Amino acid sequence: MAQKKMVTAITSMNEDFAQWYTDIVKKAELVDYSSVRGCMILRPYGYAIWENIQKILDQRFKETGHENVGMPLFIPESLLQKEKDHVEGFAPEVAWVTMGGNEKLTDRLCVRPTSETLFCEHYAHIIHSYRDLPKLYNQWCSVVRWEKTTRPFLRTMEFWWQEGHTMHETAQEAIEETERMLNIYADVCENQLAIPVIKGKKTDKEKFAGAEATYTIEAMMHDGKALQSGTSHYFGDGFAKAFDIAFTGRDNTLQHPFQTSWGMSTRIIGAIIMTHGDDNGLVLPPAIAPIQVVIVPVAQHTEGVLDKAYELKERLQKLVRVKVDDTDNSPGWKFAEYEMKGVPLRLEIGPKDIEKGQCVIVRRDNREKYFVPLDQLEQKLPELMQAVHDGLYAKALQNRIEKTTAATNMEEMKAATDGKNGFVKAMWCGDLACEEKLKEECGISSRCMPFEQEHLSDTCVCCGKKAKAMVIWGKAY
Amino acid sequence: MAQKKMVTAITSMNEDFAQWYTDIVKKAELVDYSSVRGCMILRPYGYAIWENIQKILDQRFKETGHENVGMPLFIPESLLQKEKDHVEGFAPEVAWVTMGGNEKLTDRLCVRPTSETLFCEHYAHIIHSYRDLPKLYNQWCSVVRWEKTTRPFLRTMEFWWQEGHTMHETAQEAIEETERMLNIYADVCENQLAIPVIKGKKTDKEKFAGAEATYTIEAMMHDGKALQSGTSHYFGDGFAKAFDIAFTGRDNTLQHPFQTSWGMSTRIIGAIIMTHGDDNGLVLPPAIAPIQVVIVPVAQHTEGVLDKAYELKERLQKLVRVKVDDTDNSPGWKFAEYEMKGVPLRLEIGPKDIEKGQCVIVRRDNREKYFVPLDQLEQKLPELMQAVHDGLYAKALQNRIEKTTAATNMEEMKAATDGKNGFVKAMWCGDLACEEKLKEECGISSRCMPFEQEHLSDTCVCCGKKAKAMVIWGKAY
Repeated sequence: MAQKKMVTAITSMNEDFAQWYTDIVKKAELVDYSSVRGCMILRPYGYAIWENIQKILDQRFKETGHENVGMPLFIPESLLQKEKDHVEGFAPEVAWVTMGGNEKLTDRLCVRPTSETLFCEHYAHIIHSYRDLPKLYNQWCSVVRWEKTTRPFLRTMEFWWQEGHTMHETAQEAIEETERMLNIYADVCENQLAIPVIKGKKTDKEKFAGAEATYTIEAMMHDGKALQSGTSHYFGDGFAKAFDIAFTGRDNTLQHPFQTSWGMSTRIIGAIIMTHGDDNGLVLPPAIAPIQVVIVPVAQHTEGVLDKAYELKERLQKLVRVKVDDTDNSPGWKFAEYEMKGVPLRLEIGPKDIEKGQCVIVRRDNREKYFVPLDQLEQKLPELMQAVHDGLYAKALQNRIEKTTAATNMEEMKAATDGKNGFVKAMWCGDLACEEKLKEECGISSRCMPFEQEHLSDTCVCCGKKAKAMVIWGKAY
Repeated sequence: MAQKKMVTAITSMNEDFAQWYTDIVKKAELVDYSSVRGCMILRPYGYAIWENIQKILDQRFKETGHENVGMPLFIPESLLQKEKDHVEGFAPEVAWVTMGGNEKLTDRLCVRPTSETLFCEHYAHIIHSYRDLPKLYNQWCSVVRWEKTTRPFLRTMEFWWQEGHTMHETAQEAIEETERMLNIYADVCENQLAIPVIKGKKTDKEKFAGAEATYTIEAMMHDGKALQSGTSHYFGDGFAKAFDIAFTGRDNTLQHPFQTSWGMSTRIIGAIIMTHGDDNGLVLPPAIAPIQVVIVPVAQHTEGVLDKAYELKERLQKLVRVKVDDTDNSPGWKFAEYEMKGVPLRLEIGPKDIEKGQCVIVRRDNREKYFVPLDQLEQKLPELMQAVHDGLYAKALQNRIEKTTAATNMEEMKAATDGKNGFVKAMWCGDLACEEKLKEECGISSRCMPFEQEHLSDTCVCCGKKAKAMVIWGKAY
């Protein structure tokens, strides 16, 4: 009975996971499409989720000494070309502004796909002495990448993100910064979004264009595929040299600073959907849910019911983000609606409840039902929200454990990936050729070399030569 | 002595107001230039001011039922062309994306100069019944207008802003919305930014492309020129018809909704600079100052001074945005630096102050000095911040009063505008020809027809025909 399906309008996730995803982003009113190919409209509910994620991240960035700035939307072609690897990586996928008003431009402008080059140009203006370091800047904006096939949140031509760009006196400090920011991303994913992640380093093939090293957090979606959820890059002093950024050091010599960048985007909302959602719709972790508790009055035309509902809202809004739905729709319709929207807790209150001085609370994640005395709500609601968070995290972790295997040779690798998703742990020799072969023969890519290494065997799963590292392999969004 | 000039690096405002402005935006570290023509970099201090303004406005918008959304950055040319007046107004000044990656686009994309067309396309998808109304959306973003000459904050190719776009069941409701939002803008200007404004309606010549009516708040800068500080537009159902937005009304007939839009931009930071600034630099109204109180330790190497400074910071940061400058620069250098940055209150604390259990507080706006017992800071600081706000507002209002005149014929109008800035109140017949003649002969434009009308004479200042309204005329940024 508790498992009875109340919303039949969306495709079941086991039937067609991709269609289930599309149904949710539309029916939960997260996005709408527009006539701009590949760009999404973030509707109020989708945008409110993003605002909550922004608030959490922004606070963490500021606590660690970072400052927000606003950089131009455009990058002149001549500026983009200053760092060779970077332009090779990005030029094929940018939008070009060639006309301003009725004038043809001599130096085309690309719409920023990322802003390393703009930050470097600015840093060259303002960094002169070791006293000017570190510079710890971040910007909230949208960027554009000319993608061929797009899906809301997961891959869109325009997406919203933050991009941190920092400059440091020493390589050591810059490397510590990449780790610090990766740890913040991982902590927010696990403790706010209830998404377990694996921290690791990207292989050279998968690293950011122009970076010396890219660090990543990788999450597993319900269908076993991987989603790269945040990255942090160490640049060494490569860009600094290309952009003539130099400072007088403590020893009075001219030196180049060491650089990082790191980003998390609206893609993470795709991760939330595909990690926690079910056949009744979205399931939101309480920390970022725009509505944490929805109050549904039962028999709301009975005297006193609506008044009690408003009174509870008034009381509880100091504690949680709460809404009363007093529309004329039936309670059953409302239950289904807020399940679709993933509201973590539903509070039902009717005439009999009021008589008994209690209400009914239903958890979105497992539909467990609680009778809670009205005077205990201030204590119970935070407990139940924590319980929803913990339940979501445990379920996601269990899914990852179940869908993670290990392989020591190609036969095992093929068995582990043939018609199946999931993570496969396997040793790797470090050669690009093996990565490419695994891509071709098994359809998988290296997700990362986890910081927590295991020794599965001495030899590369692909070529049998001496292994250098354990890699997590998988199919990825 | 109190008036002694401590910073000599900037041009005096009476000598060269334009250069004074440019000096401030650079020396107070609000912006930097980049190789992207006409686009500015908002540096941390400038961006922090914008963030504080955003917080204030966003809260006001949410309190009045508005929701934030994220719209695409691009508008296809075919979509921009749907409303005739609108495209005529904006097409000459947009940036065109004609290439995506290596592909030439068949339908060019402009970078949004404003987003009415995108909102209308979306509203056509989601408005079906009167029950779907009103829709009260807002977005925070940057927009691009291909300007020929640019100045930081005042006129840049890219600027940051918010744009509200709403749809209503009736014309009356839409008109009330335009007034509500204009009142919020005026209230924020006066009570948070200490900028007195005049509320009024634009003439047809000056209204927004595609609007039926544009309402505005006009502020006077220190040099007597006007700065349009926020606008609110009523569209009737013109766009709704052009975009096929229709809903089933209460009477079961198909109707078009009535529309508004309203915006405030980073331009307002230009208004703050030019309203309150002086020859020592920026002067910030306390409500949006990134640092409200700077603690400058005096003789900071004396034992106990820095500890006391940190202790005060710890105590006061619950109340105000406070910073300790413990760098090795001299107190005199620090005084000048934070005057340049417009910090409303400076708190000096040295060994003798500590002995006496007091500190020195200096107001940025008038340099008045107060000896305040340390145990009274929690009470005194808010009082002094209010005093700074009130002082700034009174000074700005006084400037406007002094630089506002009235004219009843062309002779008086020429006398009032010849080689002078300032507002001139004069009656107008309503004809475009007179507006154009006043522009040509006196270099002025109509700022607005104030809601608070006065009857200065029966006839138009220009042609002598029967007057329809009093207009505020002036030179504008």
